[in-house]
Amino acid sequence: MTVDRNGLEVLGTEECLNLLSTERIGRIGITSGAMPVILPINYRVEGERILFRTSAGTKLDAATRHAVVAFEVDHVDPVYHSGWSVVVTGMAEPVEPSDDDRLWETPRWAPGPDERLVAITIGDISGRRVESGGLGASWSLHDSG
Amino acid sequence: MTVDRNGLEVLGTEECLNLLSTERIGRIGITSGAMPVILPINYRVEGERILFRTSAGTKLDAATRHAVVAFEVDHVDPVYHSGWSVVVTGMAEPVEPSDDDRLWETPRWAPGPDERLVAITIGDISGRRVESGGLGASWSLHDSG
Repeated sequence: MTVDRNGLEVLGTEECLNLLSTERIGRIGITSGAMPVILPINYRVEGERILFRTSAGTKLDAATRHAVVAFEVDHVDPVYHSGWSVVVTGMAEPVEPSDDDRLWETPRWAPGPDERLVAITIGDISGRRVESGGLGASWSLHDSG
Repeated sequence: MTVDRNGLEVLGTEECLNLLSTERIGRIGITSGAMPVILPINYRVEGERILFRTSAGTKLDAATRHAVVAFEVDHVDPVYHSGWSVVVTGMAEPVEPSDDDRLWETPRWAPGPDERLVAITIGDISGRRVESGGLGASWSLHDSG
């Protein structure tokens, strides 16, 4: 097991991709009006691409037309004080309806008008895991605060 | 109730601040090596500031020394198909140990060496809520995909 300087387990690419597929909601980091913004999105993974929907004319639409974005998914078990996170950086681009009908079977955070489908092609992917009890100190501190 | 163009309830500033206080884990959006990155952090709210810990010399350390960052917290109820998210943009700066002893009672994602405390002073804050059943279509689609 590889650990980083903070004692967190470093996850391999395959495991990161597998973990991405186990969740439904992630967060995308974009630039909007020169400011950084994070938004929750419903997503799914198709090969090396992360797919999500948005509506034409939104901030998210404008910021995902051929732009490098960040994407993050995590899962925390409050009982066992364990968790993992997977972090992606990649190029976001619109998917044309003609590209592949099955791609459009992608959920979204909330229904909206004039839907677009966006694909993030995974460039960098990395992940960390905190083993059972590893979050203990933090959570105790938090509980007492 | 104010709704946005996607039919999501728009939350007021007070409610956003209250909701921030109910969670423990958020995600920070930073720029590292000219690339956008999102990382999970354990945090707490103190007035108009979001506090979290990191270790000196990390990516997160380097990217939060007087820099504008994004921060996001969300909560989803998979049973009722409802959820909310709060999005913050603000200036991140190190907190000196002498500033206020109580500030150092802040949890962190995972324990590490050479700890620093960082405060994000909330600039913009906004939030959305999806009412019960509002995520239904998305989740059904996801379930079938």
